[in-house]
Amino acid sequence: MALSRKGFRVALEDPSPTAAALARDLGAGILAAGSEDIPDLVVVAAPPDVVAAVVAHELTRWPDAVVTDAASVKGTVLAALQDKGADLTRYVGSHPMAGRERSGAVAAQADLFEGRSWVVAPGPQASAVAVDMVCQIAEAAGSAVLVMTPDEHDAAVAAVSHVPQIAASLVASRLRDLPAGAIALSGQGIRDVTRIAASDPGMWTQILSGNAPAVRAVLESFAEDLDAVLVALRHLESEPDGSAVGARAVLANAVANGNAGQSRIPGKHGAAPTTYATVVVVVPDTPGELGRLLRDVGEAGVNMEDLHIEHGVGQPFGLAELSVLPAAVQPLSAALRALGWPVHE
Amino acid sequence: MALSRKGFRVALEDPSPTAAALARDLGAGILAAGSEDIPDLVVVAAPPDVVAAVVAHELTRWPDAVVTDAASVKGTVLAALQDKGADLTRYVGSHPMAGRERSGAVAAQADLFEGRSWVVAPGPQASAVAVDMVCQIAEAAGSAVLVMTPDEHDAAVAAVSHVPQIAASLVASRLRDLPAGAIALSGQGIRDVTRIAASDPGMWTQILSGNAPAVRAVLESFAEDLDAVLVALRHLESEPDGSAVGARAVLANAVANGNAGQSRIPGKHGAAPTTYATVVVVVPDTPGELGRLLRDVGEAGVNMEDLHIEHGVGQPFGLAELSVLPAAVQPLSAALRALGWPVHE
Repeated sequence: MALSRKGFRVALEDPSPTAAALARDLGAGILAAGSEDIPDLVVVAAPPDVVAAVVAHELTRWPDAVVTDAASVKGTVLAALQDKGADLTRYVGSHPMAGRERSGAVAAQADLFEGRSWVVAPGPQASAVAVDMVCQIAEAAGSAVLVMTPDEHDAAVAAVSHVPQIAASLVASRLRDLPAGAIALSGQGIRDVTRIAASDPGMWTQILSGNAPAVRAVLESFAEDLDAVLVALRHLESEPDGSAVGARAVLANAVANGNAGQSRIPGKHGAAPTTYATVVVVVPDTPGELGRLLRDVGEAGVNMEDLHIEHGVGQPFGLAELSVLPAAVQPLSAALRALGWPVHE
Repeated sequence: MALSRKGFRVALEDPSPTAAALARDLGAGILAAGSEDIPDLVVVAAPPDVVAAVVAHELTRWPDAVVTDAASVKGTVLAALQDKGADLTRYVGSHPMAGRERSGAVAAQADLFEGRSWVVAPGPQASAVAVDMVCQIAEAAGSAVLVMTPDEHDAAVAAVSHVPQIAASLVASRLRDLPAGAIALSGQGIRDVTRIAASDPGMWTQILSGNAPAVRAVLESFAEDLDAVLVALRHLESEPDGSAVGARAVLANAVANGNAGQSRIPGKHGAAPTTYATVVVVVPDTPGELGRLLRDVGEAGVNMEDLHIEHGVGQPFGLAELSVLPAAVQPLSAALRALGWPVHE
């Protein structure tokens, strides 16, 4: 849909003829079946565990075409193609970093990739012409292109996506057998840490299996640090009188190292992260009240960076935490107070 | 400040006379020094590693007063008081689940506890009168009171707060040595998982040390699951051809168990979590644009539940993800489109 709108001639094929016809009806392009066109570029969108077989087939079927794929792991796909003796000068793996919780043509969006990163990860044998062609369609779809090797890609997603997923799932697992009264103490911290723990197990089994070496490497260093924390906690438990020399330094280092890593996550547009200040407003839990607050924030002319809603247990109101630039705290608080909102700075 | 406003007579004491005087000037109460009042209730707000000593001192100093504290761990404080031979009928530990990133009287807010949970955690010897008195001040401060044993409290915060903190810190630690290009792939997932990794190492060393047995127990079950995932990943790595029988089930179970745990985190007011739908809007990154969007959302009359702002790499705009009830998706999208906003559903 994105490429057709940009004037590319797109031919559609799918194992399900219904899916292909639906994509055509939604304006994604013409049906490949019955077309005489010979493609310059084939884009394979298939589950991680079959993508290499489909790419190999397309490379053989179209001897002059460049082939790319959209799988979220890259090294195992390239290795499987090498094992199959595929023409690796014409294969350039890629990974558009965008997606939806629904799949299929019916969930398609022409603007899904706008403003998202699209990794282009050529193997060492890929031709410059092939790499350039894949970069062009990523840019045409509105993405920011990042070129890196397949191994660099896989190590990066292991650290910034796959290991965070495992950690979130294992934290959330601890809640299964907790008494209801204990779960009532959940605050914004555990909500944030476990949000992605709601992800689909089938999809993640494919992703983690497909990136096993890189995930294993990052997870082993995680497990080493975890073990050190456990040793320190056991030491403190066995000497609760304030001795346990050295144990506190292990805990402090674990948190301080987390500070250092977290501060590297880029803010807006790759710039250094900005520190925002928070304005907390008590919002009655009746329909329209949050909307009224947001309208009032908008009318105050303040550029809000983020919003978290926190709901108290057994209270008929919530707390809206508005993140704004520090300089905006005073004018925003004053404007909201003047309109009768209970504001905490 | 909260209790003084509710008509309680509050006397203030602090190791720093300046801090006590500042609290008085801010309207928190009168200075205890020079007052002839004999307290009915003493509230000790001291760092976790000295709180037991201060509580013991106050129990001796005021032989008829009830004493409570606000430390975030409860079992070790009670055990230390028992070792000191303190009068445990008059001690009722508590934990107001609210706080700020700044401390001291100057950062005080009379409404800090409104809508937050306040755990009251009496030991087995605490008198009913003492428990009731502590519950009363928690309610007077506007909190929702949750009564549980010290061990129940410590096990709960280990699972919903302390282990999530360790996991977030260890995930963030992995980013320290990552190339800058790899960090650029960070999306909303790792931002959420590592948000609390920015926490203060000194404070967390005290908290984790003070709750070592409960944290150790939860972290050991985390480590067992982590080890199973590592074994499965090594198995998949050694047999990348699609065999490694059983390894995929371990990964799928880890994610599925996370689904089960995450779904228990309560939504609004302790009710079952509601599933929200997301409306994504492209917002130009110029001042006032997000405010204009929020005003338009407010005018559409839709009760927005949450908002995430995602910024693309190298793009002059961001994506605003509005969480709303599923039934509100169509009317909100239509209203925003009519006003010219590029909306993805």
